[in-house]
Amino acid sequence: MSANKQVLLANRPTGWVQESDFRIVETPVPQAGPGQVLVKVHWLSLDPYMRGRMSTGKSYAKPAEIGQPMVGGAVGEVIASAGGRFQVGDFVVGALGWQQYALSNGEGLLRIDPVRVPLSAYLGVAGMPGATAWTGLLEHCQPRAGETVVVSAASGAVGSVVGQLARMQGCRAVGIAGGQSKCDYAVRELGFDACVDYKAGRLYEDLQAACPDGIDCYFENVGGAVMDTVLRLLNPFSRMALCGLISDYNSTEPYGVTNIRSILVNRVKVQGFIVSDRMDIYMRAIQQLTGWVSQGRIRYRETVAEGLENAPRAFIGMLRGENLGKQLVRVA
Amino acid sequence: MSANKQVLLANRPTGWVQESDFRIVETPVPQAGPGQVLVKVHWLSLDPYMRGRMSTGKSYAKPAEIGQPMVGGAVGEVIASAGGRFQVGDFVVGALGWQQYALSNGEGLLRIDPVRVPLSAYLGVAGMPGATAWTGLLEHCQPRAGETVVVSAASGAVGSVVGQLARMQGCRAVGIAGGQSKCDYAVRELGFDACVDYKAGRLYEDLQAACPDGIDCYFENVGGAVMDTVLRLLNPFSRMALCGLISDYNSTEPYGVTNIRSILVNRVKVQGFIVSDRMDIYMRAIQQLTGWVSQGRIRYRETVAEGLENAPRAFIGMLRGENLGKQLVRVA
Repeated sequence: MSANKQVLLANRPTGWVQESDFRIVETPVPQAGPGQVLVKVHWLSLDPYMRGRMSTGKSYAKPAEIGQPMVGGAVGEVIASAGGRFQVGDFVVGALGWQQYALSNGEGLLRIDPVRVPLSAYLGVAGMPGATAWTGLLEHCQPRAGETVVVSAASGAVGSVVGQLARMQGCRAVGIAGGQSKCDYAVRELGFDACVDYKAGRLYEDLQAACPDGIDCYFENVGGAVMDTVLRLLNPFSRMALCGLISDYNSTEPYGVTNIRSILVNRVKVQGFIVSDRMDIYMRAIQQLTGWVSQGRIRYRETVAEGLENAPRAFIGMLRGENLGKQLVRVA
Repeated sequence: MSANKQVLLANRPTGWVQESDFRIVETPVPQAGPGQVLVKVHWLSLDPYMRGRMSTGKSYAKPAEIGQPMVGGAVGEVIASAGGRFQVGDFVVGALGWQQYALSNGEGLLRIDPVRVPLSAYLGVAGMPGATAWTGLLEHCQPRAGETVVVSAASGAVGSVVGQLARMQGCRAVGIAGGQSKCDYAVRELGFDACVDYKAGRLYEDLQAACPDGIDCYFENVGGAVMDTVLRLLNPFSRMALCGLISDYNSTEPYGVTNIRSILVNRVKVQGFIVSDRMDIYMRAIQQLTGWVSQGRIRYRETVAEGLENAPRAFIGMLRGENLGKQLVRVA
């Protein structure tokens, strides 16, 4: 515990993120001041939203600061406490950043049970991505039994939960993912009814075949040409939860969506949303998801990068879709 | 009453409608069979949605048939009745088509009061366009006092009511229209707080100046570049009612909307809608609007083409934005 390795934001990227946009430093481990806790980070979460924080464009959250540790959710153990709600030995999840040791005044920090589900699950299926899936599907799409639910980035941390929740609602769950192995995972391990590989180049035809009754709910994580194609297959009175546009995050020229007419003709509701707007739903979702994971009713996979110094490379790989399931960094 | 002049659909246009896509014929005036009424048409309504009915592309209603009278709402007087709910002398509004005399079995026909407001108003401000404005704004956007409401095609039959309803809700009403005279009309006669001429070529800057607090509700009639620009100015948690995409109706290549990201970042709700889906709202809206029109609380203008034979030219002019307010044809 001599030094605190940190990954700082070095540059604001335009287009694709480079490893040189980050800088790895070692600083002294800080000490907890009054009301603070010092957390030793075990797992760092890597999520697509972080790409937005690297830029200064208008977004729903403040950008990360140049020269400061990258922002990010993490799980760790309280190793020093100077008052407040947390005690040494508590396991917590919160926005601790890309570093080995983090100070916190307790704001936004949640105590977690390391026995009920594995620690890392609180960053994925039983954490923010899981709650995102829950909110977008159950609150905004409100699927009814027998309807067809389509989700893009289906094998990812959010999409994999969307499909399983859709199945629990009695829906036909159809995924869209990049590559046959991701699709096989979605169908064979997660129980999706079908999954379409958009890289095969026949997205419209394949999706039409996978959705013989059209699409009633669409959970959108990627945007771009995938969204444009899905729009053509939406049913009357369908609902689209707009959760992410990962295909746009790294492009300097955003894709032009041509099938807006489907929203009118089919009386579609499109709802952009961010999970943190609804903390009431968040806590309820996490409770339910933790229960379902502990019962084995919801399954998940993780892709783990070893060591904080590998976080930049893993993050870039995730933006390119190289991970399967939740992308994590094992920090300790 | 020797002949029934009719405007038939002759061809399905691609791109801009031509007068040659219609054919004017004279047929014998039909006789009312059992349960039917014969209606002498006084006013024919011309509306942008009719462009969709001329094509076979997927839409929310069946296309018009080649060789049959064009579909359309009209107001007229019952001149023969062979049973049913209507009597000779009743004034009615319904889908009577582009013709001088129409048979009806009474389905979808509404009796109207020719004294309370002028007959033609039942095709505009106190009819389908008025109910469309009411539904999109009050049901789907739900503006709160002090919010900014923007509507495109602001001087049209729908847009002009949207702005006046927004003012009645205590909102700032901002129009978008093509040309300074339409904008002057919206502000001086209809009471809009501001109106931006998109043809002036500075839509983003002018709209930003007209909406110093951003945009909370957007009522969309035109789509295309106008929609793409408005998206950039939406506030967090804003609502967009998608009512029409008139800029796309005549183009063979639909516009690509690039600012979808705003829907995500600002957690926007976009709701496509069609007024006829909600007849419960429709009847309530018509009742309210008729009252407000009769009290002078809602104002309107009409552009009138004289004679059914001029309906095709007037329709094409309306699609090009040559009308001010509601486009009508005086048939008798």
